[in-house]
Amino acid sequence: MPEYKAPLRDMRFLLNEVFDAPSMWAENPRLAEAVDPDTADAILEEAGKIASQVLAPLNREGDEHSSKWNDGEVTAPPGFKEAYQTYCEGGWGGLGGNPEFGGMGMPKMLVGQVEEMVQGSNISFGLAPMLTAGACLSLNAHGSQELKEKYLPNMYSGQWSGAMDLTEPHCGTDLGIIRTKAEPQADGSYAISGTKIFITWGEHDMAENIIHLVLAKLPDAPAGPKGISLFLVPKYLVNEDGSLGEKNTMGCGSIEHKMGIKGSATCVMNYDGAKGWLVGEVNKGLAAMFTMMNYERVAVGIQGLGVAENSYQNAVLYANDRLQSRAPTGKQFPEKAADPIIVHPDVRRMLMTMRANTEGSRAFSTYASRWLDLAKFSEDEDVRKNAEAMVALLTPVVKSFLTDLALESAIEGQQVFGGHGFIREWGQEQHVRDIRITQIYEGTNGIQSLDLIGRKIAANGGASYRIFAEEIQQYIASQEGNDKMAEFINPLKAAIANLTELTEWVMDKAQNNPNEIGASSVEYLKVFGYTSFAYMYAMKAEKALEKEGSEPFYANKLATARFFVKRLLPKYISLTEAVKGGADCLYEMAADQF
Amino acid sequence: MPEYKAPLRDMRFLLNEVFDAPSMWAENPRLAEAVDPDTADAILEEAGKIASQVLAPLNREGDEHSSKWNDGEVTAPPGFKEAYQTYCEGGWGGLGGNPEFGGMGMPKMLVGQVEEMVQGSNISFGLAPMLTAGACLSLNAHGSQELKEKYLPNMYSGQWSGAMDLTEPHCGTDLGIIRTKAEPQADGSYAISGTKIFITWGEHDMAENIIHLVLAKLPDAPAGPKGISLFLVPKYLVNEDGSLGEKNTMGCGSIEHKMGIKGSATCVMNYDGAKGWLVGEVNKGLAAMFTMMNYERVAVGIQGLGVAENSYQNAVLYANDRLQSRAPTGKQFPEKAADPIIVHPDVRRMLMTMRANTEGSRAFSTYASRWLDLAKFSEDEDVRKNAEAMVALLTPVVKSFLTDLALESAIEGQQVFGGHGFIREWGQEQHVRDIRITQIYEGTNGIQSLDLIGRKIAANGGASYRIFAEEIQQYIASQEGNDKMAEFINPLKAAIANLTELTEWVMDKAQNNPNEIGASSVEYLKVFGYTSFAYMYAMKAEKALEKEGSEPFYANKLATARFFVKRLLPKYISLTEAVKGGADCLYEMAADQF
Repeated sequence: MPEYKAPLRDMRFLLNEVFDAPSMWAENPRLAEAVDPDTADAILEEAGKIASQVLAPLNREGDEHSSKWNDGEVTAPPGFKEAYQTYCEGGWGGLGGNPEFGGMGMPKMLVGQVEEMVQGSNISFGLAPMLTAGACLSLNAHGSQELKEKYLPNMYSGQWSGAMDLTEPHCGTDLGIIRTKAEPQADGSYAISGTKIFITWGEHDMAENIIHLVLAKLPDAPAGPKGISLFLVPKYLVNEDGSLGEKNTMGCGSIEHKMGIKGSATCVMNYDGAKGWLVGEVNKGLAAMFTMMNYERVAVGIQGLGVAENSYQNAVLYANDRLQSRAPTGKQFPEKAADPIIVHPDVRRMLMTMRANTEGSRAFSTYASRWLDLAKFSEDEDVRKNAEAMVALLTPVVKSFLTDLALESAIEGQQVFGGHGFIREWGQEQHVRDIRITQIYEGTNGIQSLDLIGRKIAANGGASYRIFAEEIQQYIASQEGNDKMAEFINPLKAAIANLTELTEWVMDKAQNNPNEIGASSVEYLKVFGYTSFAYMYAMKAEKALEKEGSEPFYANKLATARFFVKRLLPKYISLTEAVKGGADCLYEMAADQF
Repeated sequence: MPEYKAPLRDMRFLLNEVFDAPSMWAENPRLAEAVDPDTADAILEEAGKIASQVLAPLNREGDEHSSKWNDGEVTAPPGFKEAYQTYCEGGWGGLGGNPEFGGMGMPKMLVGQVEEMVQGSNISFGLAPMLTAGACLSLNAHGSQELKEKYLPNMYSGQWSGAMDLTEPHCGTDLGIIRTKAEPQADGSYAISGTKIFITWGEHDMAENIIHLVLAKLPDAPAGPKGISLFLVPKYLVNEDGSLGEKNTMGCGSIEHKMGIKGSATCVMNYDGAKGWLVGEVNKGLAAMFTMMNYERVAVGIQGLGVAENSYQNAVLYANDRLQSRAPTGKQFPEKAADPIIVHPDVRRMLMTMRANTEGSRAFSTYASRWLDLAKFSEDEDVRKNAEAMVALLTPVVKSFLTDLALESAIEGQQVFGGHGFIREWGQEQHVRDIRITQIYEGTNGIQSLDLIGRKIAANGGASYRIFAEEIQQYIASQEGNDKMAEFINPLKAAIANLTELTEWVMDKAQNNPNEIGASSVEYLKVFGYTSFAYMYAMKAEKALEKEGSEPFYANKLATARFFVKRLLPKYISLTEAVKGGADCLYEMAADQF
């Protein structure tokens, strides 16, 4: 059976050595109150245990049995309810929550590492706390004090879970055309009617109550995205004293049969005049919903990373275990019938690719989380503003690039197993199926890439991009004269020069043809991603070089960084060429000629 | 429900216009007897009907119900048995078979097109005739006259199906260490004992008998690959008069639960002193088995292509149908709530990528099939020898590159559907799961790539490669002065120069470090593939330019060729860089440090 071991050593390297989170925590009053290095360490240790001992063993169970729908009731796979109980009792649900309402106020840099373990060991399970945390974020940012007091404590504790209801059968990306209605009632509440689809854990038996945040339109709302409001709609109404009242007039009509994340329930939710309460302002529902988007999108990137790490670990075990053929350089284990396949260069290439993708992703999501923390916690307005710009810029890259790499990794991790990789019992094919959704939900990766080059870069004339590029240039300058760093700095220098030039190229072209944005977006985002990873690997190599020789860990970091620079980073060259192929060749054929 | 339409127009373009198969057929006595353009046309037409009307409607059925095992018996999914009957009655099984034993002697160029439709509409079903055809090829090439007379006619008719038994639990790639035993018996037969796994359609209820070709070792056989013999082992023994006798002492112990191709049964076969007959010479079983390999591997490439075409067709329908957001250049359908998503550049990019991958694959597999036909049918020994070298060189590229592209395409085809692509009822996720196996079986794509650069190129000092490169150079020279072709010829010129230089680079490096072969192989094969596609697209563009303006079909060919050259071909640049990253960075870490 596949095992999962939390990659704690690498997480600590990033937190403590590369990004020096403890200094940031110590310097900030709110963070100093919430966390210190010892606490962080203990949290990681405990999260690793939950992931390995409680969640990972249920991962295949969830896939095999899946959530079941019966007459409106949804039963989670065997063991999930008990695991959810354990998870909640450990207090994990409120890790990043607002302390005013029972949350623990931890920084995303730490929460993100915990997320990696939870999602990586069992993504279907992990979606329940992830959606709850997302709902809490929106509620905390936009809900009235009354709503927050009434709902947040039980959501942080996990006693009640959360769900986000955006999509409808006819619209996902284009939320401006939703049809769900909200009729104002005399008591100040709203009657919600309509159908929502793809609602993750919208119904289940793990929590006492389920709090839905639902996008809907008031009767007189303007057309399009500016006429959307956000409502809190609980499965069970909550009495004044906090006890549960009657069932709301809503229900789960069915659940989807999916490629992966089968343990989780993906629900069709029907609202029939269900009682809901406005969250935030009328007609500003999209903005209220998107408050949590940066956190959620980073979390989806982390999901991909986590599952890819899981696949990598299994692939390493198999590659050391499976005997097949001899090393090209001669028998390595003459006493055995064949050598373990890890001796073969192509198996090494697959494992190193997975490793480099995963470690780069961990570094980059931690880096992005650092900006999230600065944007939230810093007491300096300039720092916060700058951090917000970085969060906005980097979030689509984290979501999209990390999940694209995760699929690549999981496919390699399956390929290492040969035919056995295709068989369910080995577990590797499930990772491929599970990861696939991370490229689709929470805004498809195509939409993320439009967000990056369109809204986050072109819309402000590249201002945010220049802040990021400048940071990298300063880093490069700081390493001037560090000869040992040249092998990492020179490729970074070339990559960032290319990205800057390409950014200008796209913005320039887009002035004459708006299609150039969408035509370049997916490849552009990948160029951005590889360049960002080159920066991550340089920073990691710098720390590893300082301690080279002290333990193999640091030599391994350097080996992975070298592999990345030599074998993966060059991808940006072709991606750049593809962008420069331009938009015209996409429109030579009429739509009816495809 | 997804539909499948046979891409007959493109197939005819390749057969009749680009590669002028009719001339080759007319000039060759055996081919002239077997086929003429009208017959070929009728065959394609009829195959298209079977694919659309009989096989495609069962594709999801197969996935949902899968083959079932019960106490040694395997039941194919609902409808499969009847479809198999229809297929056999149409005479499709013997299309490429030896006319001496009831086959139709058709060229692979035509058979390959039929395969694309059969496999593309229902790969799980298609595996049954595919494995039968493979077994027939080996038997026809190496079996005694008696075995051929006894078995081939009923296998060509499909009354009996075929299976290939290579893999064992402890070995797949490394067949030298198989354990299945063959004990010589007094009557000239052999008693076969052992366990084989991953035996596609090794047991089922669609045919009266199942003829297994089994690799096994004689008691005194030398160790390793030179001690393997090939045996014919029928499920039911065949009496002298051709009627079926008693059940052989063999059986299906279980079937696998797989990621995809669920309609097909993947069997564990147990042999307990089963009666078998030697095919070919003692200890030369691997060579006898590999006779069919070039055909089978090309067929696997075609499987990928076929399923990717199916995914493409569905994606086009959805992209024209689904309304979501507005075109970047302004509303295209102001009367609708939103524009169809095909207006969006990134959706176009996905569709064009699928289209270019698929059409390039169809051209390349047809081109490789042409070499297979020349190697088999030509009456000129020099032509045959040259063709054999080309077949050997190109086969791993067809198998590996086409299936890699097919997965890419199917993933794009799923992404076009957004969240719906993840839901089973839309059919797109099944294509991803089904295609995935084509990268694994019949020699993993990693093994194919080693075969290409190791055995097919480096082992003969690049001699075969130079024949291929020379052909391309001659083609380039032939287009000198054709200004309209410059946009296709110039990129081809650069690509082939790069490939030649890279080939020499790898061969040179490998002299000092045998790991360089395996370290470069996967990326090298892709560079080879993209370069080959550039050649295909140039040839296609040449024909299309001649008829530009006569019908939109030719303008569409040019549009696809331009997209390929501008947006996909550049991939070889980064792949080349990755190869030059070398082998050393794969071995910096010790195996136990992963």
